[in-house]
Amino acid sequence: MPVNYATPEPAALFPVAGVRLGTAAAGIRKPNRQDLTLIELAPGSQVAGVFTQNRFCAAPVTLCREHLAQDTGIRALVINTGIANACTGEAGLLAARQTCTAVAGLLGCTAAQVLPFSTGVILEHLPSERLIAGLPAARAALAEDHWHAAAHAIMTTDTVAKAASRRIAGPRSGIPGMQSPSAGFPLTVTGIAKGAGMIRPNMATMLGFIACDVGLAPDLLQSLVREAADASFNRITVDGDTSTNDSFVLIATGASGCAIDSESSPYWPALRAAVIEVAQELAQAIVRDGEGATKFITIKVGAGGTADECRRVAYAIAHSPLVKTAFFASDPNLGRILAAIGCAGIGDLDVGRLRVWLGSAGEEVLVAERGGRAASYVEDDGARIMQAAEITVRVDLGRGAAEAVVWTCDLSYDYVKINADYRS
Amino acid sequence: MPVNYATPEPAALFPVAGVRLGTAAAGIRKPNRQDLTLIELAPGSQVAGVFTQNRFCAAPVTLCREHLAQDTGIRALVINTGIANACTGEAGLLAARQTCTAVAGLLGCTAAQVLPFSTGVILEHLPSERLIAGLPAARAALAEDHWHAAAHAIMTTDTVAKAASRRIAGPRSGIPGMQSPSAGFPLTVTGIAKGAGMIRPNMATMLGFIACDVGLAPDLLQSLVREAADASFNRITVDGDTSTNDSFVLIATGASGCAIDSESSPYWPALRAAVIEVAQELAQAIVRDGEGATKFITIKVGAGGTADECRRVAYAIAHSPLVKTAFFASDPNLGRILAAIGCAGIGDLDVGRLRVWLGSAGEEVLVAERGGRAASYVEDDGARIMQAAEITVRVDLGRGAAEAVVWTCDLSYDYVKINADYRS
Repeated sequence: MPVNYATPEPAALFPVAGVRLGTAAAGIRKPNRQDLTLIELAPGSQVAGVFTQNRFCAAPVTLCREHLAQDTGIRALVINTGIANACTGEAGLLAARQTCTAVAGLLGCTAAQVLPFSTGVILEHLPSERLIAGLPAARAALAEDHWHAAAHAIMTTDTVAKAASRRIAGPRSGIPGMQSPSAGFPLTVTGIAKGAGMIRPNMATMLGFIACDVGLAPDLLQSLVREAADASFNRITVDGDTSTNDSFVLIATGASGCAIDSESSPYWPALRAAVIEVAQELAQAIVRDGEGATKFITIKVGAGGTADECRRVAYAIAHSPLVKTAFFASDPNLGRILAAIGCAGIGDLDVGRLRVWLGSAGEEVLVAERGGRAASYVEDDGARIMQAAEITVRVDLGRGAAEAVVWTCDLSYDYVKINADYRS
Repeated sequence: MPVNYATPEPAALFPVAGVRLGTAAAGIRKPNRQDLTLIELAPGSQVAGVFTQNRFCAAPVTLCREHLAQDTGIRALVINTGIANACTGEAGLLAARQTCTAVAGLLGCTAAQVLPFSTGVILEHLPSERLIAGLPAARAALAEDHWHAAAHAIMTTDTVAKAASRRIAGPRSGIPGMQSPSAGFPLTVTGIAKGAGMIRPNMATMLGFIACDVGLAPDLLQSLVREAADASFNRITVDGDTSTNDSFVLIATGASGCAIDSESSPYWPALRAAVIEVAQELAQAIVRDGEGATKFITIKVGAGGTADECRRVAYAIAHSPLVKTAFFASDPNLGRILAAIGCAGIGDLDVGRLRVWLGSAGEEVLVAERGGRAASYVEDDGARIMQAAEITVRVDLGRGAAEAVVWTCDLSYDYVKINADYRS
């Protein structure tokens, strides 16, 4: 059961002009399961992505980088679940190439115009023949309103499909430098993502796809995909593991006729905010659906010397199994939070200046100050807040003005169960 | 149930001349529990220690450092369980000082000659009045053969007491520069430790006390305590959390009459080896008794560019919850090991040169090479080895000649249960 998250209804996911999605059951690892997704993009679409930092990056990630670098215009994305096609050597690269070639043949483009994505078990070979045999059915299912089906088809250990959508006010006619389809026509940003475990900064076992119908200059697209990732998927952690397959792709079809060429475009601020909002909603949905999660924890670290040290403190808290099990138990064993802060690697941290608050639903309680328990703190307050499903830990390092936020979840019996049973 | 570890019988723990131990039930956190240990050292004993790197180091750790720096000759150690006296600010320091003063009054020494140690819940105040009230009973129980009782009295979430002992051949009369008690008299090294969770490199929620009856020059003692810690307690991890209270102390009473003044002493090699062996046995016992542990995992990383990068790879594997749950499930989901290696932070790691073996009980199977699954690997082999209670993961980085070893355990339902229930 995810923490306060339900997949939006299909009607709440606005189609993005220029994007069609189709799914199929290819029997890649298990029969009778929608495990193949094809996303077709209109000619002229711009695509940018960020990918895993894991040295064992999966074959599809290698091909994504290669095809994006060739810059011949991406026309399709193909996503399979079941097998990650990671740590599969040359054979894995060949299987991914064959997949792209088959998609290209079906859609009438080149293999370099196809981006492949895989998620599932590592170290096993992708049965590309089954994947390829499933492609015609996925193509036959292509439709602009299949975001909901695609969000379901990319799930692995996820218990809910993750999707988010925004509409913002679009151009009125007569704005210079802009082809305006109609006065006040809305612009759309819609995205889907998958991921529930192996989630950590610098991407995770997560796949994220966000599309908008705006045209975006390549440099804006590239900087926006990075900014959105840094503000969302790179700020979440479930278990501290970084996947071989993490990919986040931002698509700008331009099919609305609205083109943003620079940051001075009147539509840039709203478009940028909508993309980041959708990315954050998807990223938070991954944590809410974290394997075994029963609590959604926001960790805010402020008054740091640098943003990097704030992030280190936030992750030290977020990665501590002792802190995470205490949240699961609703146990205000707050010393574990202080102990985690103490070993975040800030050598000159003055624990006498540090303050820690625990909060939920608008209430906030000072827990620690002057190197120990706050004089005003009573355990009943901590116990009450720890019962909540959404909890905020706020840390003031007393060193400067930098800050960082990380979202995580608790560590429960079910995390162990899910990961001990995953391949069974 | 610890993995292949049972506390040695009391008779197997050789007394160390110059060391007397006594325990008592002081009711520090729970009634009717031996929670207080007093260790009295003969005059002239030399003591050195290494302590937690956590910035929130506990009050007793601060006092240990202060008293060792004063160098007036340590005469007693006092250890309590139940309350860690960490993150307790000035009040915590006062409680630790009062404890030392009370011990000093009982034993006829100064407070600076007493080292205090605490382990248990963080952020709660040490009831020093109850601790002090229990001291006379602990003093009354002082005896040279109470190592076994002391090993039990320092336990917290430990399920077995941890102790180890060695005797080595001692001096024969007539060796220059040595007071020889009798020909062939044995020298003794005996130690106890506690710890089961919050265990990570650079010490852990562990307390370790090793004593020998040899006299050791201060520089030898200081270098040996560091060397032994680096080869033992700093090579284990259960959950990646570093405690506020970690302490490892090496005591050299000199009561055997044998004094080692330099590394050229004929007794130095055997004494050094015995101390390291005892430390390793205690450290491994902590992992074998790791909270919820069902497997004992040795991770050997070789052919690295530097020892540091070997350690980073070993810890990346040892800290991965996905790897640890796969060991718990006896699931040869070896891709998780490769994924962990891939995000150990070695930016120029060539995964094509890396090889990984899985082994147990003399058998070893090549699992991965050339960036993927080894051609010779069959899953039945992996599945058979993963069933074993003691498993070795060996990694060849193909980059150089450095190596490192880390010991860890799996992650089970019971880890979560123990840490979710700890304060209940």
